[in-house]
Amino acid sequence: MGSCCERMGPQKNTYVRVSLPAVCFVWQIAMIILFGVFIRYDEESSATWPEYRDKKNLTDIENDFYFRYPSFQDVHVMIFVGFGFLMTFLKRYCYGGAGFTFLIASFGLQWALLMQGWFHSLDLTTGKISIGVESLINADFCCAGSLIAFGALLGKVSPVQLMVVTLFGVTLFAVEEYIILDLLHCRDAGGSMVIHCFGGYYGLAISWVLYRPNLHQSKRLHGSSYHSDLFAMIGTLFLWMFWPSFNSAITDHGDGQHRAAINTYIALASSVLTSFAISSMAQKKGKLDMVHVQNATLAGAVAMGTAAEFMITPYGSLIVGFCMGIISVFGYLFITPFFEKYLKLQDTCGIHNLHALPGMLGGFIGAVVAAAATEEVYSEQGLINVFDKTGVYADRDQGTQGGFQAAGTCVSIAFGLVGGALVGLILKFPIWGDPADDNCFDDEAYWELPEEDEETIPPVLEYNNHMIQKGQDITESSFSVEQS
Amino acid sequence: MGSCCERMGPQKNTYVRVSLPAVCFVWQIAMIILFGVFIRYDEESSATWPEYRDKKNLTDIENDFYFRYPSFQDVHVMIFVGFGFLMTFLKRYCYGGAGFTFLIASFGLQWALLMQGWFHSLDLTTGKISIGVESLINADFCCAGSLIAFGALLGKVSPVQLMVVTLFGVTLFAVEEYIILDLLHCRDAGGSMVIHCFGGYYGLAISWVLYRPNLHQSKRLHGSSYHSDLFAMIGTLFLWMFWPSFNSAITDHGDGQHRAAINTYIALASSVLTSFAISSMAQKKGKLDMVHVQNATLAGAVAMGTAAEFMITPYGSLIVGFCMGIISVFGYLFITPFFEKYLKLQDTCGIHNLHALPGMLGGFIGAVVAAAATEEVYSEQGLINVFDKTGVYADRDQGTQGGFQAAGTCVSIAFGLVGGALVGLILKFPIWGDPADDNCFDDEAYWELPEEDEETIPPVLEYNNHMIQKGQDITESSFSVEQS
Amino acid sequence: MGSCCERMGPQKNTYVRVSLPAVCFVWQIAMIILFGVFIRYDEESSATWPEYRDKKNLTDIENDFYFRYPSFQDVHVMIFVGFGFLMTFLKRYCYGGAGFTFLIASFGLQWALLMQGWFHSLDLTTGKISIGVESLINADFCCAGSLIAFGALLGKVSPVQLMVVTLFGVTLFAVEEYIILDLLHCRDAGGSMVIHCFGGYYGLAISWVLYRPNLHQSKRLHGSSYHSDLFAMIGTLFLWMFWPSFNSAITDHGDGQHRAAINTYIALASSVLTSFAISSMAQKKGKLDMVHVQNATLAGAVAMGTAAEFMITPYGSLIVGFCMGIISVFGYLFITPFFEKYLKLQDTCGIHNLHALPGMLGGFIGAVVAAAATEEVYSEQGLINVFDKTGVYADRDQGTQGGFQAAGTCVSIAFGLVGGALVGLILKFPIWGDPADDNCFDDEAYWELPEEDEETIPPVLEYNNHMIQKGQDITESSFSVEQS
Repeated sequence: MGSCCERMGPQKNTYVRVSLPAVCFVWQIAMIILFGVFIRYDEESSATWPEYRDKKNLTDIENDFYFRYPSFQDVHVMIFVGFGFLMTFLKRYCYGGAGFTFLIASFGLQWALLMQGWFHSLDLTTGKISIGVESLINADFCCAGSLIAFGALLGKVSPVQLMVVTLFGVTLFAVEEYIILDLLHCRDAGGSMVIHCFGGYYGLAISWVLYRPNLHQSKRLHGSSYHSDLFAMIGTLFLWMFWPSFNSAITDHGDGQHRAAINTYIALASSVLTSFAISSMAQKKGKLDMVHVQNATLAGAVAMGTAAEFMITPYGSLIVGFCMGIISVFGYLFITPFFEKYLKLQDTCGIHNLHALPGMLGGFIGAVVAAAATEEVYSEQGLINVFDKTGVYADRDQGTQGGFQAAGTCVSIAFGLVGGALVGLILKFPIWGDPADDNCFDDEAYWELPEEDEETIPPVLEYNNHMIQKGQDITESSFSVEQS
Repeated sequence: MGSCCERMGPQKNTYVRVSLPAVCFVWQIAMIILFGVFIRYDEESSATWPEYRDKKNLTDIENDFYFRYPSFQDVHVMIFVGFGFLMTFLKRYCYGGAGFTFLIASFGLQWALLMQGWFHSLDLTTGKISIGVESLINADFCCAGSLIAFGALLGKVSPVQLMVVTLFGVTLFAVEEYIILDLLHCRDAGGSMVIHCFGGYYGLAISWVLYRPNLHQSKRLHGSSYHSDLFAMIGTLFLWMFWPSFNSAITDHGDGQHRAAINTYIALASSVLTSFAISSMAQKKGKLDMVHVQNATLAGAVAMGTAAEFMITPYGSLIVGFCMGIISVFGYLFITPFFEKYLKLQDTCGIHNLHALPGMLGGFIGAVVAAAATEEVYSEQGLINVFDKTGVYADRDQGTQGGFQAAGTCVSIAFGLVGGALVGLILKFPIWGDPADDNCFDDEAYWELPEEDEETIPPVLEYNNHMIQKGQDITESSFSVEQS
Repeated sequence: MGSCCERMGPQKNTYVRVSLPAVCFVWQIAMIILFGVFIRYDEESSATWPEYRDKKNLTDIENDFYFRYPSFQDVHVMIFVGFGFLMTFLKRYCYGGAGFTFLIASFGLQWALLMQGWFHSLDLTTGKISIGVESLINADFCCAGSLIAFGALLGKVSPVQLMVVTLFGVTLFAVEEYIILDLLHCRDAGGSMVIHCFGGYYGLAISWVLYRPNLHQSKRLHGSSYHSDLFAMIGTLFLWMFWPSFNSAITDHGDGQHRAAINTYIALASSVLTSFAISSMAQKKGKLDMVHVQNATLAGAVAMGTAAEFMITPYGSLIVGFCMGIISVFGYLFITPFFEKYLKLQDTCGIHNLHALPGMLGGFIGAVVAAAATEEVYSEQGLINVFDKTGVYADRDQGTQGGFQAAGTCVSIAFGLVGGALVGLILKFPIWGDPADDNCFDDEAYWELPEEDEETIPPVLEYNNHMIQKGQDITESSFSVEQS
């Protein structure tokens, strides 16, 4: 039983019984201390709201909660069910896909509240960070970057490594976001640049450093099963349906949220048609490929992340979706295999085709649309609102704005590639409990699997059963509903 | 391998590698052109909103987005996850059920924005259609009609045929909706008439024309598996939970939405109890049938589609749900088999029992409740709001209104039957790539299936594996995450 | 075939063809009559709203619908998909888990509208109960208590028994809720006390009375399968994501809802990390246990049910989540087995660790936080709003309030234990059609199962197939999509 011996061998040991709990406890305790020092409720979530409300002459319904909360919940579903289930397409890595997403996003959002707070909402007089519903949305966004990176590493890393990926991912995210949104004063409501472009290249760089020459040894597990593909469709559809909320969650009250939702809704619809078309054309018998249906159909929304709040027009949105569906499927057909063969880059979920590339293009699309914005289309007040032309930015002309948007995209790429490479090097240390090449894409490494599981294990894996049985006998001591 | 040869034979060829991409591209490009010519943002989603808001003396929170968006997202989930997963109950047609729903709804909503725009919100001076969040909801509603029709055809048609069904379905929908809502001035917030009754009879008529005398040849696949039924429950529950949003999404601000949600919530609850009761009574050992649980439990909401916004009273809603649960299960027990045996009508999902019949009854229930409406129950202003008694309709008495509601129901039936028959004839041409009788209900015809799938294929289908293996070898050329 | 004979035998007969329909019909008809006598729309959902609105000088957006509906829909999803799918983890009881949840919650919410109405919103002059969106939320909450109890009984009772559990569960809930919230004037927005603590002990007491000494006879089915655990994750994640809505759904407009959502969001995140940590530490090889991931990760929100609306501070929320994750996993590791071995208490889902214990602790945490509330933190107006210090309670000091909160927790425990014991005795009558010891955890007892199901039945159950085949032959008479 090669894989088994491998696992017992010195160089590859998936034993995380010490490291995983240690990391979880240390980091969680650190969060508690830092929250205690820094994080407070903002005026709208504090019990002092009534005074604030009356002072500002507002009504309860004008509390930001009612502008943002429905979108927040949709985004929250995208992060945990959307990303989580999209990563259950592998036949024997469903627990890892959904479970590790759950773990790292739960840590990531806490760390994000702090990092983004320090950069964006630290009150220098009191030294406190005030949080409200918009902070929760931004924290979820921040996790998305690391979850995208997870997509490239799916099945090849340990949960401890993923915690490290998230720690640095969130940190880098907060810095590049600060540079792009605050210093360059770019607009990026849906995060084509700061989320998808950064997250994509961050994950690709890590995966490139962690290249596994003998990954073919776990070829038997590197595919889907009929039902695992269906579970992945749950993830795809919740991402697809709620993406209008994702791109509109933090845009301006009123027309900003309204327009961003419409543009995203339209772009997604056209992505679907072109994805299905190319997927069918690409196969000798014209059959559709679930991988394309699960991923390329979402590319239109990724590319609308920046432009969704602009007056890109409905047909403009259709065109963006149209092109992205095509580009993304081509990515799965040619770019991903090319990367694997010639760049020694293994991208399990093909995040390059769904996030990195569409995100980058979305950044440039946003730049063009921003540069083309005129007062007669936006109205004077509208142009000021949409591009936040206030303070020192009051008289930045649209051409310049477009230039800065493009620059912002490059910043996110640079952060992703450089940051990812460094994190990759850290993850190369042999202390993280990552699986051996012939043991990748296998939940057996980090999860207790149900005993009577013969029915779902293809004959090829017959020999695995012994292992599972063994694992179970050993663990009879730990009580659980499963051990009857 | 009969089915295989069949497929290679001249008369039945599921090869859609040319037709499917062609249809997708041509129609998507047409959408882009038509959107460019006609579709614009409305005042509430345009960057000019601030001026409009101040002119109308509103606040941002009174942008229609905040009245409608949460309901819109619920409806969106019903269309893609609700309808999509409800159609995954067949053991080997899960990809088709969820995937084709995804495809045709994505096309349908674009075409619906245009068709409904031309009929309802075309500004004759500018020649433009203004869209906002309510347009998105109506577009989703419009797709529902075609998705209902898909339910009757599930497993027996090709994706190309479904695109045609959707093209005509949306077109017919927009016309009958215009006649019923604008010309007859009926009220139908949840679409018992315009959506369910029309969609149901539209699908039944198509299925009747496309009758397959030898469908028994694919008997082996015409059933569910333990897990496919559970996937279908996901669809059922999301439809069930969000139906209050469906029926209240476009009703009047304030009490209209509030009341419609309450009535639907109550009606659904009582449908569940009577569905379970009859399902248990119908089986020798008193065992429950998942088909009834998945479908009949929803019938109460379908029948409340028209009356939900009226003052039907909570106990009135309970009674409607009570009866519909019974009627719908009886439909599955007796009407569907009767149709198949004597009317030569094959209704895969039993849409007659869930949509056509309850929708028709819902139309008549609405007529009765409308006729019975009085000023002392609704208040003077209330009666005007609920029945939109404005302009030329100001002094239409309630009895007349009831008559028109009943007439509207008949219009929707007529459109469904006649339109469906015609579309059925178009689909009989041997050019659409539909499957042979012994190859129905099989994803293998239009989808690349995972290689190691033995575990989920019942022995009966043993011989299928070879086919799948073949299919895979052939397609080694097309790269994908699954081919490692 | 032991189990089969057993079933035919006199003492244990799962035949519910008479009892189940009878209960459903009688109770549903009773609901219709009682709704007819008592239930009416409130001012905000009645067609008379425009007059009320203008009298109160409000705008449509200030209709309570817009404050509460998005949270209501989230809660609704938690009840039906959250609880329903969380109970699908057993390999052969998925239909029962999701299906019976569907049935009893649908009955429970109707009965809850009446019971809670009589206690909380009965207008003594008119003798009517006015319902609005908040009533729907409370009705869903009320069902949660009985669904929690179902968790302890999962697989061991008949649907008829579950209807009885729900009838009494909702009744007891309404009474204890009235005592705790109205008489003791406790605050319990998220129901740590009234929902989780009560529901948990209610279910445990029932399960204790219904102890089955020979349950080991169905050991073969008392475990999960790879895919059933994944279905359960759907339930877990929807509970986890929407819990902020659960705890904030009925809190004060404005800051109340805003703060409760933030606190719950934060507490849940830290529960996840500590749950994963302890789960890994507890297993010899450091492997994660899905049972812990599916349940313990939610404990933080249960314990925040009372304190979420208070100024517990973000780090306070983190600490609560931190401890609950640890306590809950320890519960699964040691308390549940201890209960089974020494207290003769079989708790299928481990509700003691997820609901009873965290709920009780949440009640006491709420008491402490309430006692510690001060005017400089809450502001004068804030303190009055949060603790509803009006009327006779205007000058109850915080220490006293804390004392009453603690007393309320004890009341809920008492109601759960005593009520559960009595209901358990009722359920011991041999008339309810519950399964024999060797036939527990098996959908075959109450559900028609798909014919070709070999692929999902582990060899151990080989002999079961015959039974299923038989069951199917017998029922050929009842037509359904599954019988092709």
